[in-house]
Amino acid sequence: MAQDKRQVDAITARDTDFAQWYTDVCKKAELIDYSSVKGMFIYRPYGYAIWENIQAELDRRFKETGHENVYLPVLIPESLLQKEKDHISGFAPECAWITLGGSEKLEDPLCVRPTSETLFCEHYANIIHSWRDLPKLYNQWCSVLRWEKTSRPFLRHREFLWQEGHTMHATAQEAIEETERMLEIYADVCENVLAMPVVKGVKTDKEKFAGAERTYTIECMMHDHKALQSGTSHYFGDGFAKAFGISFANKENKQQTPFETSWGVSTRIIGGIIMTHGDDNGLVLPPRIAPTQAVVIPVVQHKPGVLEAASALRNRLAQAGIRAKMDDSDNSPGWKFAEYEMKGVPLRVEIGPKDMEKAQCVIARRDTGEKIFVPLDQLEETAARLLDEVHDSLYAMALRNLQENTFDIKTVEEAKAIAGGKGGFLRSKWCGSLECELAMKEQAGVTSRCMPLEQSGQEGVCPVCGKTCATDIYWGVAY
Amino acid sequence: MAQDKRQVDAITARDTDFAQWYTDVCKKAELIDYSSVKGMFIYRPYGYAIWENIQAELDRRFKETGHENVYLPVLIPESLLQKEKDHISGFAPECAWITLGGSEKLEDPLCVRPTSETLFCEHYANIIHSWRDLPKLYNQWCSVLRWEKTSRPFLRHREFLWQEGHTMHATAQEAIEETERMLEIYADVCENVLAMPVVKGVKTDKEKFAGAERTYTIECMMHDHKALQSGTSHYFGDGFAKAFGISFANKENKQQTPFETSWGVSTRIIGGIIMTHGDDNGLVLPPRIAPTQAVVIPVVQHKPGVLEAASALRNRLAQAGIRAKMDDSDNSPGWKFAEYEMKGVPLRVEIGPKDMEKAQCVIARRDTGEKIFVPLDQLEETAARLLDEVHDSLYAMALRNLQENTFDIKTVEEAKAIAGGKGGFLRSKWCGSLECELAMKEQAGVTSRCMPLEQSGQEGVCPVCGKTCATDIYWGVAY
Repeated sequence: MAQDKRQVDAITARDTDFAQWYTDVCKKAELIDYSSVKGMFIYRPYGYAIWENIQAELDRRFKETGHENVYLPVLIPESLLQKEKDHISGFAPECAWITLGGSEKLEDPLCVRPTSETLFCEHYANIIHSWRDLPKLYNQWCSVLRWEKTSRPFLRHREFLWQEGHTMHATAQEAIEETERMLEIYADVCENVLAMPVVKGVKTDKEKFAGAERTYTIECMMHDHKALQSGTSHYFGDGFAKAFGISFANKENKQQTPFETSWGVSTRIIGGIIMTHGDDNGLVLPPRIAPTQAVVIPVVQHKPGVLEAASALRNRLAQAGIRAKMDDSDNSPGWKFAEYEMKGVPLRVEIGPKDMEKAQCVIARRDTGEKIFVPLDQLEETAARLLDEVHDSLYAMALRNLQENTFDIKTVEEAKAIAGGKGGFLRSKWCGSLECELAMKEQAGVTSRCMPLEQSGQEGVCPVCGKTCATDIYWGVAY
Repeated sequence: MAQDKRQVDAITARDTDFAQWYTDVCKKAELIDYSSVKGMFIYRPYGYAIWENIQAELDRRFKETGHENVYLPVLIPESLLQKEKDHISGFAPECAWITLGGSEKLEDPLCVRPTSETLFCEHYANIIHSWRDLPKLYNQWCSVLRWEKTSRPFLRHREFLWQEGHTMHATAQEAIEETERMLEIYADVCENVLAMPVVKGVKTDKEKFAGAERTYTIECMMHDHKALQSGTSHYFGDGFAKAFGISFANKENKQQTPFETSWGVSTRIIGGIIMTHGDDNGLVLPPRIAPTQAVVIPVVQHKPGVLEAASALRNRLAQAGIRAKMDDSDNSPGWKFAEYEMKGVPLRVEIGPKDMEKAQCVIARRDTGEKIFVPLDQLEETAARLLDEVHDSLYAMALRNLQENTFDIKTVEEAKAIAGGKGGFLRSKWCGSLECELAMKEQAGVTSRCMPLEQSGQEGVCPVCGKTCATDIYWGVAY
């Protein structure tokens, strides 16, 4: 019992201190640990397994849409990084530099990649010659380094894991279609795998990626009503390609410059999962990426036959394609209940002597706490159905949070009042000027999140300058 | 036809210049490319896909034996690297150092990991407290940096991809069992997946890993009779654990030091695959890791129904779990034959109007060139059987190469004659002294590969000092 309390008490309530709650969950659910290098984290087995499951979902979709994985060097020469001006000015302050290799001082210092546009462009310049070589649809799974001043688990690391897609196309139209296709894949994974509803949109010029012509984004709302940018997809036009001298002979044998995209999702999305679904008892994992979808716990496990029965249930679940484990350790059932609750395992399956007499087991849902008595011969179908129900219910709850905390505002004062109060997404018209965008930040404390793809088309007024305009835009406080 | 010739002519014959043949294959089969950073390579889609297939085979076996994946930082503080003396002296000359982060000069320079023993030990010191925390069975997929002076595709990179397992155990016995278990897994993957026979053994003290008590290895023989160390598994005793202050309370609540192992396989093994199975027409891939196991080529593809028939064959193969693709590009069949031959695709499936009339297709084996007429209704079973036969036949050929080029030698002169001639593995007795080991290198030009796990147990004489001794040892020239 002392142990049970320790587990549960260790987590701060969300309403008391959401930031502390978040750090507690990351640490106590053993997702992540600090290392001796400032700002760099250790992805522990449970956290890494979540990432592996997200990777598998994304990677399958990338391959189904014709993408191929590659691996390019982790180091970028300073001279290469400087070839595209907007890009280097965006990333230079965050680069970590290698100046010594072995005992040799390097003449051209090498940067640990903060992102790989420059490396891909250099490679593409070598391998793209003809229209037959296009499109090139490459993706890379790797880690990147950004020398941030502050850090938080998953949300801001000096080193984080991600995927970066980099593609080249014969026409601007094809490249724009690719950029949008990848945004749709990200939205699909967010909503249908991670149970996180998204707002899809386009970033303002101020917020777009360094060197991009247009940046698409998916924005998610966290439990505390702040925004998390959860994936971005960039259209580069032919800017990088020109800077790197990439060209191809078209079907008429004329030289042409190709058009480029890049797109990425990182382990930051795990922070989003935690802050979207977690509760005061800890983590709540969306079933489709939960490393353990069902944990089987034998009750009164020293009684004859109980361990065997529990083990049989685990095996049947695994056989049915459900990621299941049994905990037959000598910890008390109460300790185990608290432990797997904290770790966010979607379903807990209990079986004891009394259940065995009745040829049943008990399944408890992590999201609602509801307990269901399940005849043993209906185990697999019930578990599979419940996993889908948990997904649907997590999604519905997150969608309600998003909808109930998105507000149409007409003035800066309204924006300020909400942003300074319970927070939320603020939807308004925008005249398109940088001045008004900066004024919103200055006066209301919010930044632009995106111009949503779904535009109402109706006219209104910009809350800052009062000009009549038609563009819808979302504002918010972001992680 | 001009195109056909270009493809095939571009590869140097193995007997003319094996090193050049190797580089040609790496480059022309589009496995790898050079980058602008000396010694760092680009893993192209075809090369990376081979690595993904090897990863999947290894990762499944790691997980089946209870291992969990983690990800630790890419950077190691100099102070941490210095905690184990043998280790730092082994790796210091090969480290790349970060001295600048953003605009800040670092007081404690950070090394890009050459291997992660020190990081794992630091983490283990934080999370291992009780016997209940053991064993810890962690593995990491990542890239490592070693500032080598020379480089060759796959065999020697400044940055390469690998997995590194790091485990902690309550007893020395358990740790040794783990070390041997992982060696067996490596041997299993080499032999049964990559069709590469291995010699399993233990390294001499001179050749063991920096900081290890004992290093196990699998050694493979390449087509040119040189050796490739293809995987290693290290037993550390409690040396690192003591240096890092790792201890746990045993069941009697007494503090004890745990015992450690580490083990790794890298993309170097792709070099091994190329040099074991390749021939003068290019790459020959073992079917179980070939990114494309069967390529379907329509013949006279403008004739009605041919493309549809080819496409149906591809779909049936894919449905049967065979990695299949169809090439319906407008290149000539001859060009395609040469292309997929060079790329080492195990099976080529041809279908044209005449085949369609006879309700058959033709399957050509990459390894033997043999052509088999296959009734369409036997496609799937024939292809699956042929893939197994190609595997078996590649293995048998490699085993014959190993056996026919392993020589029992009794004197340094014999060793020198063979090493200076056609080369091979040299098996002799060894007295165990460093002096005799160094003399073999000095006088015969060979290094010790391993003391094989299978020892004859019979006495003989050390070829250098002439002392009577019983230890069998392998010598060779290594990549």
